[in-house]
Amino acid sequence: MNRDEVTAAIVAARLERGISWQELADLTERPVVWLTAALLGQHPIPAGEAKLVVDALGLNPAVIPILGAVPVRGGDPALAADPTIYRFHEALSVYGQALKELIHEQFGDGIMSAINFSIDLQRKELDGAARIVVTFDGKFLPYDWTAGA
Amino acid sequence: MNRDEVTAAIVAARLERGISWQELADLTERPVVWLTAALLGQHPIPAGEAKLVVDALGLNPAVIPILGAVPVRGGDPALAADPTIYRFHEALSVYGQALKELIHEQFGDGIMSAINFSIDLQRKELDGAARIVVTFDGKFLPYDWTAGA
Amino acid sequence: MNRDEVTAAIVAARLERGISWQELADLTERPVVWLTAALLGQHPIPAGEAKLVVDALGLNPAVIPILGAVPVRGGDPALAADPTIYRFHEALSVYGQALKELIHEQFGDGIMSAINFSIDLQRKELDGAARIVVTFDGKFLPYDWTAGA
Amino acid sequence: MNRDEVTAAIVAARLERGISWQELADLTERPVVWLTAALLGQHPIPAGEAKLVVDALGLNPAVIPILGAVPVRGGDPALAADPTIYRFHEALSVYGQALKELIHEQFGDGIMSAINFSIDLQRKELDGAARIVVTFDGKFLPYDWTAGA
Amino acid sequence: MNRDEVTAAIVAARLERGISWQELADLTERPVVWLTAALLGQHPIPAGEAKLVVDALGLNPAVIPILGAVPVRGGDPALAADPTIYRFHEALSVYGQALKELIHEQFGDGIMSAINFSIDLQRKELDGAARIVVTFDGKFLPYDWTAGA
Amino acid sequence: MNRDEVTAAIVAARLERGISWQELADLTERPVVWLTAALLGQHPIPAGEAKLVVDALGLNPAVIPILGAVPVRGGDPALAADPTIYRFHEALSVYGQALKELIHEQFGDGIMSAINFSIDLQRKELDGAARIVVTFDGKFLPYDWTAGA
Amino acid sequence: MNRDEVTAAIVAARLERGISWQELADLTERPVVWLTAALLGQHPIPAGEAKLVVDALGLNPAVIPILGAVPVRGGDPALAADPTIYRFHEALSVYGQALKELIHEQFGDGIMSAINFSIDLQRKELDGAARIVVTFDGKFLPYDWTAGA
Amino acid sequence: MNRDEVTAAIVAARLERGISWQELADLTERPVVWLTAALLGQHPIPAGEAKLVVDALGLNPAVIPILGAVPVRGGDPALAADPTIYRFHEALSVYGQALKELIHEQFGDGIMSAINFSIDLQRKELDGAARIVVTFDGKFLPYDWTAGA
Amino acid sequence: MNRDEVTAAIVAARLERGISWQELADLTERPVVWLTAALLGQHPIPAGEAKLVVDALGLNPAVIPILGAVPVRGGDPALAADPTIYRFHEALSVYGQALKELIHEQFGDGIMSAINFSIDLQRKELDGAARIVVTFDGKFLPYDWTAGA
Amino acid sequence: MNRDEVTAAIVAARLERGISWQELADLTERPVVWLTAALLGQHPIPAGEAKLVVDALGLNPAVIPILGAVPVRGGDPALAADPTIYRFHEALSVYGQALKELIHEQFGDGIMSAINFSIDLQRKELDGAARIVVTFDGKFLPYDWTAGA
Repeated sequence: MNRDEVTAAIVAARLERGISWQELADLTERPVVWLTAALLGQHPIPAGEAKLVVDALGLNPAVIPILGAVPVRGGDPALAADPTIYRFHEALSVYGQALKELIHEQFGDGIMSAINFSIDLQRKELDGAARIVVTFDGKFLPYDWTAGA
Repeated sequence: MNRDEVTAAIVAARLERGISWQELADLTERPVVWLTAALLGQHPIPAGEAKLVVDALGLNPAVIPILGAVPVRGGDPALAADPTIYRFHEALSVYGQALKELIHEQFGDGIMSAINFSIDLQRKELDGAARIVVTFDGKFLPYDWTAGA
Repeated sequence: MNRDEVTAAIVAARLERGISWQELADLTERPVVWLTAALLGQHPIPAGEAKLVVDALGLNPAVIPILGAVPVRGGDPALAADPTIYRFHEALSVYGQALKELIHEQFGDGIMSAINFSIDLQRKELDGAARIVVTFDGKFLPYDWTAGA
Repeated sequence: MNRDEVTAAIVAARLERGISWQELADLTERPVVWLTAALLGQHPIPAGEAKLVVDALGLNPAVIPILGAVPVRGGDPALAADPTIYRFHEALSVYGQALKELIHEQFGDGIMSAINFSIDLQRKELDGAARIVVTFDGKFLPYDWTAGA
Repeated sequence: MNRDEVTAAIVAARLERGISWQELADLTERPVVWLTAALLGQHPIPAGEAKLVVDALGLNPAVIPILGAVPVRGGDPALAADPTIYRFHEALSVYGQALKELIHEQFGDGIMSAINFSIDLQRKELDGAARIVVTFDGKFLPYDWTAGA
Repeated sequence: MNRDEVTAAIVAARLERGISWQELADLTERPVVWLTAALLGQHPIPAGEAKLVVDALGLNPAVIPILGAVPVRGGDPALAADPTIYRFHEALSVYGQALKELIHEQFGDGIMSAINFSIDLQRKELDGAARIVVTFDGKFLPYDWTAGA
Repeated sequence: MNRDEVTAAIVAARLERGISWQELADLTERPVVWLTAALLGQHPIPAGEAKLVVDALGLNPAVIPILGAVPVRGGDPALAADPTIYRFHEALSVYGQALKELIHEQFGDGIMSAINFSIDLQRKELDGAARIVVTFDGKFLPYDWTAGA
Repeated sequence: MNRDEVTAAIVAARLERGISWQELADLTERPVVWLTAALLGQHPIPAGEAKLVVDALGLNPAVIPILGAVPVRGGDPALAADPTIYRFHEALSVYGQALKELIHEQFGDGIMSAINFSIDLQRKELDGAARIVVTFDGKFLPYDWTAGA
Repeated sequence: MNRDEVTAAIVAARLERGISWQELADLTERPVVWLTAALLGQHPIPAGEAKLVVDALGLNPAVIPILGAVPVRGGDPALAADPTIYRFHEALSVYGQALKELIHEQFGDGIMSAINFSIDLQRKELDGAARIVVTFDGKFLPYDWTAGA
Repeated sequence: MNRDEVTAAIVAARLERGISWQELADLTERPVVWLTAALLGQHPIPAGEAKLVVDALGLNPAVIPILGAVPVRGGDPALAADPTIYRFHEALSVYGQALKELIHEQFGDGIMSAINFSIDLQRKELDGAARIVVTFDGKFLPYDWTAGA
């Protein structure tokens, strides 16, 4: 069983048992975006949390070391065309160059780290309508030409 | 002169005169991400604000109606490979499917609008290091099978 | 069993039993385009309607929660080359920019929603020949730079 | 001057003179979607209508025979990523296979012609909100294995 | 069993039993190009002819309704690189624009239908060498802006 | 001036002077498909015919040696999306594998040459409707493992 | 069992039994490049040679008619990135246009046939180092506009 | 003037003056394939040979240092679709994997160098027909895991 | 079992048994980058080392000849999007052209061999932070137009 | 003048004046790989160093602010096919996954930074042959789920 097959088993068991992502996050005491991404195959999961999930979903404990290995990240590029995910890429195609210009103007030459990083999803209300608020929060890394000793 | 040529002229004049994006935003009393994106060719700019920018940058006033037309949005796909912009796409390749799952779990079947939408860039500090915080804020649009009267 | 496998089982059972899409739409009291798209894997199907379809096609009731989850939308890009589907994309390659210009001229800067949206297929006759009339009907969403409270 | 250059000149002159697509359609007594598409380079324009447009926009009459030649249709694929145009392609990625199935169920094996065809854009209101209604109307062409005498 | 699997079974059984495409065409009294394309998954096959083929190849009669459904046309794009098929695409890359110009000069603005259409393969001899003669024969469809009543 | 620029000059001069491809073919006593393809940049044109065309179109005689050089064949892939040209590629996506099978069944293992080859366009009538008949006629080349002496 | 599966079985059995390509070529009295390519799925193999190979590798004789059918040629495009194969494509990216120019200068307008063709691999020594010498040998085919009688 | 512009000037001047590649090779006493590739932008040309070519073609001597710089190799990928060049790539798609297998069987694990390499084009006759014989001749480089001192 | 399947079995068994790549390298007395790459399917592995690995991982000894064959190198292009691997490609997109210029300035016209080559990974410390130092070390190969005797 | 045009002017002036990259690096007291990459358009160049380069190459001082702006990084993807640059990408296709595995084994889950990073090119000798040694040296960044205060 490879990591992709473990991911598929998690997705199927979760639907079958009717367990929410939030419940799995609460069970493991992890941020819900992190835990959901990890269970979808994007992060290694320490054995303790992995065991809790495996028990809750009724999976074979043999998958725990597989969940603990660093995965190949990135997943299926076809996902980018799903309308719910596409809107984020569309926003970047419209505003990405502006973000680049303003990062350079306000921080200097560098990038927002996607490694020292967290992402958060919140619900807000405005004039009686729900709004999705997603926050990318990453350390600024200045271009820095450094060589090890 | 088409919109792409006007954009190039804005970029060149801004560097030559040493005017910041923030100064142009202050001049036009617009949010700086919106104004920067608009000047980079992503939004129509009303004649009043366009005139202020054209004067500040010393451009030909004949470009004002061109700035006022709705542009073809999206720009150059090669931009997505610039490291500063790429990190946002990388974050979506790692966390995009998790965002989709959690939007559906918390809001139901639908999307975050990229039209009724704003984006914000802030600087925060943590343990003496600067962090880039980018917020995507869009109205939740539930899938709704509706036909006009 | 994942959603793709459920879709394949629906397609096979429908042919085997000789049940039309219209009959399934009537059975579930849903618009036929919506129901057909949903059964082809593009929309979640509430448990009530899902049960009616599962019974009619003789499928395993265990697929009902899978039909109820929000799917990854968009399907196989190879479908776009099928001649019957291609003609719609060809029409957009010829008329898409004109639609964009006229939406902006008549409605302002914005888009037709594909979420608050319905699509309809009708048969008309003209001079003794059948015509296919497909109507895209979506709410106009103006570009609106709004942030949640 | 080739057709692309003539198209660019039309687009620029229209903005400069502040003439709407509808006014050009009225001037030439043509349907506005057809005329807009034709001026954007998708259809040949008969010399009579071409002369009316050329006069209204102050273009060189030497472009009239170029406007009269059948163009290479289809234009720039980058246009498909503009959000206003993209929503139509997104709708087809979600509903295209359903349209194919229902065309076959209701009409038999064949296609909607994109040649014996018209497309229309209307504004409707529903609950105080504007809706964009776009109708694709094409002759049904059944697959018909026929050889000339 | 889906249509692709039925096609694979037909291809295998035909080789195993040593039956030619021409024999299957004679058996079903269909043009050989049409029947071969249909058995390779490009056209629905009426139950009568399908039964004759199924019997001749010793297939399971349960595939007959699958053969009767309209397939997704187009097949595997990798086929276009096979040298025997590639030569046709090469000829179009060299002569396609000339065909377009001459269709417009001799017929007006329009297309050759690929739906009201047949294709024929003949062997000719010239100076003692065999020549392959393939004829595309399709109805001329003039661009015709028509809306249903 | 390179060959592409010469081709563009030919296309422009032909429209301006209102000369048909057939007239140029008659002038040079060449098959009209060959001559049109050659003038569109797909074949070298001997100096005699080139001079006749150059005179008829009022071009600079300095282009004659450029027209005489063997060009890079194949042209712009965007042309394949033009609806008039696309229908030929669509026919090959539906019938190409069948042609391959029947070439092998009737001729053996080999290809239709696209070099020892001609292509013809004819108009036929059937039941009062015009039909476009395009014939590909190429020498059969059997796979033949041969080495020079 | 289709041709790809037969190819995989040949590759596996050859490794398992430790039989070289040269031994299979000697056994069948065929040129080694031809036989290797044919066993890798690029040529039909007559029943006599096929039987010799099947016996030597211990395969099921039922694959003999599958080996005798004309395959879809070309194989997996990922192979072109293997370093050993890539060097040939690299040489063509550097020298291909020069070969084209010199073929036209020395032979006239035409191509080297890849059908009436053989390819040979030899080992040479120079200054104590081994050199790989690969010879492409194909009939010159002049562009020849010919139609069958 | 960059290298691409120098190449275009060489190509144009050669046609205008009617000088063959062979004459330029003789003038510079270089192998004709090497010199042709170099003049088409694939190799640096030493100042001595560059001056001979520049004089023969009547070019500006200022291009000599540009011809002497190492170019970006590889040129336009569209060239690979020209039929004369395509046949070489087609031969590799059919025989490339066989060459790989035989290189490994006869030489061991490694590649044919495309750097310590030459390529030759010869004309042979067989049964009264001309054959093009192209020889790739490269040093065998065994995979060798070596680190510098 | 083909090489890809053997690779998958190695990856799974290593995780299950908790054996590190370094332990396998120590066991076989091979450089750890070479051995890891080889076990991931990029190099043939001599029978002696292969047996040691097969024993340590509890695999079937029948895979030893498969591990000994030269593989198709290069693997899955999707790997290039994994963030840990992507950073190396990003560095080449930023510094690759500079490396090319400096190789030519310091060594002359040629390449760094990727065949007579080794790669090394080291950990260094700087100001209390760990640094990854990866060294590419390849023989310089000058472009050298040589033909075998 | 945009950055691409400034880069082209630098490349041309350097060849014309015969100034080496190393001389420009010495002049500006910058590491030669950094300075070369920067002059090729990959880094902003402070006004002091920019002035030194502009003077040495005889460029217009108006380009100094353009050299000081943060560029769009990454350049032309066609460069990756140049043989000298390609060998680095080939090494990553062979060894990239092994580097990933070993980074995770030796450092934990994270990446080598390409921002806090330097790259160095050295010449070494081994057995009388020159070797190119390129060192990538980047800070290890562990995946760290952190949000700003």
